[in-house]
Amino acid sequence: MTAQAAARVDVDALLARCGAVRAQTEALAAPLSEADCQAQSMPDASPVKWHLAHVTWFFETFVLAPHERDFEPFHPAYRVLFNSYYNAVGDKHPRPQRGLITRPGLAEVLRYRRQVDDRLAALALRAARDSALAAAIEPLLTLGLQHEQQHQELLLTDLKHLLSLNPLQPAYQPRWPLAPVRAAAPHGWLAHEAGLVETGHDAARGGFAFDNESPRHRSWLRPFEIGSRLVTHGEWATFVADGGYRDARWWLAAGWDWVQAQRIEAPLYWRREPGDDHGEGWSTFTLNGRVPLDPHTPVVHLSLYEADAYARWRGATDASCRGARLPTEAEWEHAAAPHEASGLAEGLFLESGALHPMPAAREATPGVPAQLFGSVWQWTASAYAPYPGYQPWAGAVAEYNAKFMIDQTVLRGGSCASPRSHLRASYRNFFPAATRWQFAGLRLARDL
Amino acid sequence: MTAQAAARVDVDALLARCGAVRAQTEALAAPLSEADCQAQSMPDASPVKWHLAHVTWFFETFVLAPHERDFEPFHPAYRVLFNSYYNAVGDKHPRPQRGLITRPGLAEVLRYRRQVDDRLAALALRAARDSALAAAIEPLLTLGLQHEQQHQELLLTDLKHLLSLNPLQPAYQPRWPLAPVRAAAPHGWLAHEAGLVETGHDAARGGFAFDNESPRHRSWLRPFEIGSRLVTHGEWATFVADGGYRDARWWLAAGWDWVQAQRIEAPLYWRREPGDDHGEGWSTFTLNGRVPLDPHTPVVHLSLYEADAYARWRGATDASCRGARLPTEAEWEHAAAPHEASGLAEGLFLESGALHPMPAAREATPGVPAQLFGSVWQWTASAYAPYPGYQPWAGAVAEYNAKFMIDQTVLRGGSCASPRSHLRASYRNFFPAATRWQFAGLRLARDL
Amino acid sequence: MTAQAAARVDVDALLARCGAVRAQTEALAAPLSEADCQAQSMPDASPVKWHLAHVTWFFETFVLAPHERDFEPFHPAYRVLFNSYYNAVGDKHPRPQRGLITRPGLAEVLRYRRQVDDRLAALALRAARDSALAAAIEPLLTLGLQHEQQHQELLLTDLKHLLSLNPLQPAYQPRWPLAPVRAAAPHGWLAHEAGLVETGHDAARGGFAFDNESPRHRSWLRPFEIGSRLVTHGEWATFVADGGYRDARWWLAAGWDWVQAQRIEAPLYWRREPGDDHGEGWSTFTLNGRVPLDPHTPVVHLSLYEADAYARWRGATDASCRGARLPTEAEWEHAAAPHEASGLAEGLFLESGALHPMPAAREATPGVPAQLFGSVWQWTASAYAPYPGYQPWAGAVAEYNAKFMIDQTVLRGGSCASPRSHLRASYRNFFPAATRWQFAGLRLARDL
Amino acid sequence: MTAQAAARVDVDALLARCGAVRAQTEALAAPLSEADCQAQSMPDASPVKWHLAHVTWFFETFVLAPHERDFEPFHPAYRVLFNSYYNAVGDKHPRPQRGLITRPGLAEVLRYRRQVDDRLAALALRAARDSALAAAIEPLLTLGLQHEQQHQELLLTDLKHLLSLNPLQPAYQPRWPLAPVRAAAPHGWLAHEAGLVETGHDAARGGFAFDNESPRHRSWLRPFEIGSRLVTHGEWATFVADGGYRDARWWLAAGWDWVQAQRIEAPLYWRREPGDDHGEGWSTFTLNGRVPLDPHTPVVHLSLYEADAYARWRGATDASCRGARLPTEAEWEHAAAPHEASGLAEGLFLESGALHPMPAAREATPGVPAQLFGSVWQWTASAYAPYPGYQPWAGAVAEYNAKFMIDQTVLRGGSCASPRSHLRASYRNFFPAATRWQFAGLRLARDL
Repeated sequence: MTAQAAARVDVDALLARCGAVRAQTEALAAPLSEADCQAQSMPDASPVKWHLAHVTWFFETFVLAPHERDFEPFHPAYRVLFNSYYNAVGDKHPRPQRGLITRPGLAEVLRYRRQVDDRLAALALRAARDSALAAAIEPLLTLGLQHEQQHQELLLTDLKHLLSLNPLQPAYQPRWPLAPVRAAAPHGWLAHEAGLVETGHDAARGGFAFDNESPRHRSWLRPFEIGSRLVTHGEWATFVADGGYRDARWWLAAGWDWVQAQRIEAPLYWRREPGDDHGEGWSTFTLNGRVPLDPHTPVVHLSLYEADAYARWRGATDASCRGARLPTEAEWEHAAAPHEASGLAEGLFLESGALHPMPAAREATPGVPAQLFGSVWQWTASAYAPYPGYQPWAGAVAEYNAKFMIDQTVLRGGSCASPRSHLRASYRNFFPAATRWQFAGLRLARDL
Repeated sequence: MTAQAAARVDVDALLARCGAVRAQTEALAAPLSEADCQAQSMPDASPVKWHLAHVTWFFETFVLAPHERDFEPFHPAYRVLFNSYYNAVGDKHPRPQRGLITRPGLAEVLRYRRQVDDRLAALALRAARDSALAAAIEPLLTLGLQHEQQHQELLLTDLKHLLSLNPLQPAYQPRWPLAPVRAAAPHGWLAHEAGLVETGHDAARGGFAFDNESPRHRSWLRPFEIGSRLVTHGEWATFVADGGYRDARWWLAAGWDWVQAQRIEAPLYWRREPGDDHGEGWSTFTLNGRVPLDPHTPVVHLSLYEADAYARWRGATDASCRGARLPTEAEWEHAAAPHEASGLAEGLFLESGALHPMPAAREATPGVPAQLFGSVWQWTASAYAPYPGYQPWAGAVAEYNAKFMIDQTVLRGGSCASPRSHLRASYRNFFPAATRWQFAGLRLARDL
Repeated sequence: MTAQAAARVDVDALLARCGAVRAQTEALAAPLSEADCQAQSMPDASPVKWHLAHVTWFFETFVLAPHERDFEPFHPAYRVLFNSYYNAVGDKHPRPQRGLITRPGLAEVLRYRRQVDDRLAALALRAARDSALAAAIEPLLTLGLQHEQQHQELLLTDLKHLLSLNPLQPAYQPRWPLAPVRAAAPHGWLAHEAGLVETGHDAARGGFAFDNESPRHRSWLRPFEIGSRLVTHGEWATFVADGGYRDARWWLAAGWDWVQAQRIEAPLYWRREPGDDHGEGWSTFTLNGRVPLDPHTPVVHLSLYEADAYARWRGATDASCRGARLPTEAEWEHAAAPHEASGLAEGLFLESGALHPMPAAREATPGVPAQLFGSVWQWTASAYAPYPGYQPWAGAVAEYNAKFMIDQTVLRGGSCASPRSHLRASYRNFFPAATRWQFAGLRLARDL
Repeated sequence: MTAQAAARVDVDALLARCGAVRAQTEALAAPLSEADCQAQSMPDASPVKWHLAHVTWFFETFVLAPHERDFEPFHPAYRVLFNSYYNAVGDKHPRPQRGLITRPGLAEVLRYRRQVDDRLAALALRAARDSALAAAIEPLLTLGLQHEQQHQELLLTDLKHLLSLNPLQPAYQPRWPLAPVRAAAPHGWLAHEAGLVETGHDAARGGFAFDNESPRHRSWLRPFEIGSRLVTHGEWATFVADGGYRDARWWLAAGWDWVQAQRIEAPLYWRREPGDDHGEGWSTFTLNGRVPLDPHTPVVHLSLYEADAYARWRGATDASCRGARLPTEAEWEHAAAPHEASGLAEGLFLESGALHPMPAAREATPGVPAQLFGSVWQWTASAYAPYPGYQPWAGAVAEYNAKFMIDQTVLRGGSCASPRSHLRASYRNFFPAATRWQFAGLRLARDL
């Protein structure tokens, strides 16, 4: 990562933050049995236990190994066992077999966490008296914490997928944590003029950012409008009822192949339930168990194919949304950046404990898009590509982001499973187009 | 299953046997963590927890449900969750997803076992005063125990496969339980004359047998010889060193395709280790951890393809074994049946605690094949097919054996993971030709 | 192959037979375009052009190469290109890519045939003056002709499969060659006593047989009955209408998996057609184009799974067929051998030009099963295994049959696409259980 | 497609062009046998016969069907049989089964072409007297010709792939058509300043363009340099020799997975040949047969993964190319557009008959990149996405381009198999990242 001029690294603050983030991860795993932490529901997902170990491996490998005196690993086999995808570090245990590693057990992995925490603290003590060391480890520790926050979200999405496959439909949290939901605000449009805009992380403002958010660069935007809020479950149910999943007109060719091959009929986790007098209804699976679909909440667990098809359908069938499409990431960031502070403050994040998106407030500020941050990741129309002039970080962490810049699509804004402090307007998430198990939804845009 | 005239069913004895078998299953699982019991290493294998629950489901479904007054299941979802393959019982949870059922947890499954044990005991008490009930449940209880014994072996083979995939190569048992091994006895031949022989379960002798062992029937055998002991790891290593896995001449066409597609170079669990002065050596994985290959022990974890190819190679290259082949199951049973009592007594079974085959004693009785029972299952040349006049059991247990009689091959004799009381000379095990994770080896035969 | 004491080989007769068989192959291909001869519809099937070349390769490789003076191949690349499965001969072109060999073209392959024919004739001329050579080549030439006859049938089954995939449903023969069909004879049973019977090729009687038909050997048969004729399309339609394809009770486990995974609802080539007043009807595809299903003709294009399920269904639901099952191959041969001469004479074979099974004559001889030979291959209950004492032929032709003796099932009797002179009572055909594109049907049997 | 104000459509000129393009397609097929035209080497490729029919279907469906009086199709089944991917037209024959359509035969397809040509001529005659009709059909006829030109290139790439799989390595053209090749010009860089540039089809200039080239739009470019010529086979051989295919550092993650799973070691069609004194050499397959690799010719048959990895390797290991990467499509077009006229004139296109890229001329104009057009398609760093404000054509041809805008990458410039009149600076070709059988190579770029 880019070296930062750390005039004075506040080691105490860093350690406090380290403690808080690491504790938060373990709090997420606390309600789970060893069996819950062991199972891997698909190759794309990882066991909870693996997440707990891998984020620890990250600190051990990238912070302790190069800087600890007389470094010795907690266990020599962990270098391979808990490496995710760093070829520069060496071999990796095959991803689809992560769920087969029953030893070390959960208790041993927690002991691994404890030991690495202690060694990080000891290293930080040394750094408090050694400013060169402090400058060297500060960005790596920070990266390790950002990395662990990413895995907090993945831990939850992977766990949700696992629990959803159990016919008993078990809940991660026993009770629904929020007050009854209200009707969603009406959908409107917020206009932007044409112009040469700047997006990407502004190094001058400071603060952490991943390498893929830089450099800040110019793009020419044509005039466009962006939706005033996220698309809701209720709006999506209309798309389903209108035969949206059976009409090739709305779909990208690859999306249509996917819908047919996988027999997709609704977003992931939706299930038709025997109805009352008003006909059958939909339910969906949440970390609070299976619940009736709430029409006012943002729709979630969409693939890009679905989000894209919906926008095309909405743009062709709803006069008030004529020409709807997904926003590009430059449009999204240009629209969101001015409202970053308030948007993050209002957003529904991991800290809320809801773990499911909630309706937009009716009293949203006029002229400001609601739900810019949190709730659900917003698929964009932009392929995940290097920004002009992009330089990956140096060293093994060069593999962190750069090598994934092909055939993935950018999502923006964070979700109800993202830690609030992890997000910002320039943040770029990315997944393949068929991905459904992330907390991903959409916001509309259109040309003016 | 065939109704048995149970003039007087000894309910106490049955309950005692029930307690012993059920306790043995739990003793096998006792050294394992919940994680060890959760993971499923491949679709053909099942998690230990699933075995613990499924054998209990078998009693609940086939003994309690039809005979208990006011039957109520422990949990309604278990009927589907722990059904293995009984279409007559209803839906089944998909086999490859057994490892994803993290709830119920292990403690809940053990509670399930306790409750079913208690209800079986209560039913038996009623049967002690109700001879019709006793006659009705005795064969079902017996079948349930035989079934649970089969799963004791599968629990161990599935667990061994799981542990083998862990780079840490963890041991199920911490220490090697036996004295140092001795050289194997030399290989010899035992001759049999031609004639019309009878094989299959002799109903007149009584005792339990599966439906597939009946009826007793005649076969004409040509004169043949059978090997005096099992083929050893050392003999197999010669086959490997002779290029046996790279020479199409020895292999069935399907076996040769399999060897090439899977890049098979040695039996399952073998690994080449960096050698000493004498060149590299082989190790193998056991339930006691990874150990150097012992040349004197019976070779194990073979597919039928390998066993068949070996026999052809040995028959073509070893003058003392000219014309070697696998025995048919009629030949095997004809040779083994006269020695059933002593063979079972001497055999290396689950109860030995070795969980790995051991060398044949040098002082084997002259004229009697050694290692007829226990140690390793012996692949035969016989397709698994109905005996002439075969009738499956009536009812849902008709599915126990009959529907698998295609494209599988019979194995005989039991293994070091089979409970001794579960075996007999007429016992027919069966697996597809490519199966490797069972404790399967071979004994040679040839025409006279 | 077994050396035959050819006291006097009639070279002229052999050459005449050679000319007739070779001409028959080309006559089968004559109505086809180069495109028809090029395409390969699935890995299991081969292009017509490949068949034309491969049978020629067989003569060149096994007759000319070892016996011709100064042997030079027609083209050095053909040794690999047209080798089917003989590892002893060397490399093989990948089977699924046979349809991609557009060069040599069809004309070149026909030129190859001409040249090899000429060289065989020249060799035979030498053999007429050299009895040792005559004795050496006679069995190989004979084998080559038998081999070419097998490929005549395969050429037709492969071609039928190819044409069936064309939405235009083109006919190989333009017009239906036979008179209107009559009602099938009623189904009855023919009884056989228990006893020790002999089956397999009787070397003393002379004549050609494949190695897998030897040695003649004894089997003990229990009393049984065999069906008086083949099962018909009409009888099969009743099975379909009764939900036979949707009821797990009738199916082997592997068959049930296959039915569900492949969504099988009827025999291969059946298609539901919009109906008249009497509801929808079935059509089937033949080498004469798509035609309405004739209920009186023998049902054809069944997998073993279907034949086996049908027998179980018929045995459970039709009082007159209680206990029906498939015959073993020993039962079939024991029942058929006494009627070999008349059965072959009456059978519907390739020479009829029908290329589709026809109804059994009502006036069938009392006490003699109808349709023993020709019409459709009859699935048996017997796995394809070596007979006791079996010895494969020596040399490269050892691979002809022996290496396929696993996970295949025996069919007996020949079909409407088999040359009459190719068949006999001891003939063993074999295919995997899911095979459907062969002309395969069934005859029932049951225990007495 | 966008309606064009066709003040006066020159029907005669259009018909002449139609005749020339259609004749060119048939000339490409003329040297081929019916077998060559029949086979399909992989699902991504199509048989030559299918190409001949499909481009005809395009005219019949989009020009004749809506505008011919009393339209009747040549054959009703062709609507499905020769539809490529237009859902709006209806069903499609499954793409992987195109090679199984042996009827209609080649002669019938050529008759289809004749008839449609005649009907197009008759329609054009009507249009000469009916300016509304002329205005309606002119853009559709033009599109049909552009479409047929695209398939001329695909016909050759698909045929090359087919012939390459034949062990005989047959040549499409018998003799190498060009003079001995010269050394490539040295590689240099051409610089461009930063600025807001316009790319995309300029509607004001007129001429045909696909919908995906519009609208013309602005992009901000940072200062960059572009390579003075294409990368050569010789330069690529250095990458191979340097272990480029075995070093994860150079590869995108998906590319590295692909290299390892497919065991890729060199570009498609390369083969190591036994060497002379100087060690082994490489050969490659061309439409003129297998030839030794010429180091001076542009490298061809690369996937995007390979092109991207090469640029990264070159940028890290060659001081004169420090920071090399692939150009974006905006950079490429900005650099190429000023030289469109001369570049097209000099480019090596289909009309040259070479069908293989040739070396750049040493005497290239200073300051002008060589080989901008023709020779090999140039992979860019740009995902295939809609231009800002993009509107697909109306009607069924909306499916022509728009629905493929996901997970594909843009290529620019045309190849030795592209008709010259088909290309222009704004032309966007696109393929998935793993595509190798197209005539695709690369040109380097880098930041200034």
